[in-house]
Amino acid sequence: MDEFDVIVRLMRPLVTSAEALGLADDAALLSARPGHQLAVTKDMLQADVHFRANDPAEAIAQKALRVNLSDLAAMGAEPYGYFLALGLPDGVSEGWLQSFCQGLAADQQAYGIALMGGDTTRTTGPLSLSITALGWVPEGQALTRRGARVGDHLYVSGTLGDGALGLRDLASPAHARYLRPEPRLKLGVALRGVASAAMDISDGLVQDAGHFATASDVRLVIEAERVPLSDAVRHAIVQERFSLADALTGGDDYELLFTAPANTCLPANELITCIGRVEAGEGVQVVDATGAAMVLARAGYRHHF
Amino acid sequence: MDEFDVIVRLMRPLVTSAEALGLADDAALLSARPGHQLAVTKDMLQADVHFRANDPAEAIAQKALRVNLSDLAAMGAEPYGYFLALGLPDGVSEGWLQSFCQGLAADQQAYGIALMGGDTTRTTGPLSLSITALGWVPEGQALTRRGARVGDHLYVSGTLGDGALGLRDLASPAHARYLRPEPRLKLGVALRGVASAAMDISDGLVQDAGHFATASDVRLVIEAERVPLSDAVRHAIVQERFSLADALTGGDDYELLFTAPANTCLPANELITCIGRVEAGEGVQVVDATGAAMVLARAGYRHHF
Repeated sequence: MDEFDVIVRLMRPLVTSAEALGLADDAALLSARPGHQLAVTKDMLQADVHFRANDPAEAIAQKALRVNLSDLAAMGAEPYGYFLALGLPDGVSEGWLQSFCQGLAADQQAYGIALMGGDTTRTTGPLSLSITALGWVPEGQALTRRGARVGDHLYVSGTLGDGALGLRDLASPAHARYLRPEPRLKLGVALRGVASAAMDISDGLVQDAGHFATASDVRLVIEAERVPLSDAVRHAIVQERFSLADALTGGDDYELLFTAPANTCLPANELITCIGRVEAGEGVQVVDATGAAMVLARAGYRHHF
Repeated sequence: MDEFDVIVRLMRPLVTSAEALGLADDAALLSARPGHQLAVTKDMLQADVHFRANDPAEAIAQKALRVNLSDLAAMGAEPYGYFLALGLPDGVSEGWLQSFCQGLAADQQAYGIALMGGDTTRTTGPLSLSITALGWVPEGQALTRRGARVGDHLYVSGTLGDGALGLRDLASPAHARYLRPEPRLKLGVALRGVASAAMDISDGLVQDAGHFATASDVRLVIEAERVPLSDAVRHAIVQERFSLADALTGGDDYELLFTAPANTCLPANELITCIGRVEAGEGVQVVDATGAAMVLARAGYRHHF
């Protein structure tokens, strides 16, 4: 198999839009959508760092796509298309690549997007991939991390900790959440004009909330006992295989964290939980049920070199 | 050093446009340029495959950027901005990263572009990077590979073979061309409305001409003795350290290959050489000075897995 086999036989069927020029040109050509801005995000995922090299190929493809779609959700953007760069180790099989592309095809259907371009190369290291995802957002309506105001409430979607538990425990129901996070795209769109600020949680609630607080120049207070947990995470905590602190600081959640004024009418179509408030000051304070500050050994996941 | 040090101290100074939201958000937000389309290209480069791991850090950064800018040049697009995904091996030094970012900063100045977003991660393998470059092209004026017509002349910019010689021979003046290709951006813009089709040559003239012929559904005839060669390449051929076939099939040229009708007035501001013609049929025929077909052992570079 060479790169042109991969492009022609496996990648080209993923092209469903004219912008890609059939993957036969040097670049894709996108026309503007009147009255909209284009949200662009780019993530890189490395085997043995962001996923296990022996995770199912479909899941690796879908996770790479979905972590980017989660960024679009956080901006309130509707997904439009994506570019894929794939660094393939020697000896990768055609079957593996077929499964990888089946994973992409399924998510293209699910999220209404198409492959628009990219690059297929060899690497002497482990599998390495990068996706650039594009989405449209009506002019001036994008959500950013900057608008949280003192007095706003702090909300989170879904449940937290499942990604971290699922990484550790392949037998847990949470493992499916680790493999295939669910980007909160509908919620992101519904929060336009509602949320004062938003971001997605990828590296742990507390650490990401710190970036959020800095961007908005406020302090975020998180009431730990209000943080929503799945049955799988509750069960693991009871069994002492996992802790509340793990749920507050573990990565791979891909839920939305957002703020809204206290009297706002929130969209009813998604699981949303109020987990705290915005105060004057800086940084993040996590408090327990008594209101006392909790001390956490670490705030979240970060790459060290 | 962790990823946030790298982002705040080294990457953020490369942001000079509002679209990036200071690298502090989940995605960049781009407004449309009226009357223009957005050309988007994404390449991936792996250490030990696309460059030597011990090439100068500035040159690695610039090559990664320039191979993408070369794709924009081939579309007739003006560069606008780029996204960088960086997979850093353990133990990468801050000095190396500073040099890498200095290389980017110098090219940002040279090409009038800015960093708009991206991702910094760890890898357990060698250095891995991906750039997504964006450029503007007036609506309907993009150059593609599809418009070559029977009777058109076939042209190439610059000289060929320097990248391949420079990879092999670090002492050759061609080594600088291997390290830092020169994207033909001004020529690309000048060819709008002039060239009938265009592409950039990255994997070897003959192989890339094959893709070009397929896209335009024509045959390309290349007259080998008309292919422009630098003094360094001529010298290496005389010394039998390199061959004309190497120049016709070696990668890393990043020159433009384009076609134009025979009576077209070509832009005078760049080195352009007519190297052949477009005929009815398919594929590529390389002919020698007598008009006899040349047989080449290989057509160009392709990744095998």
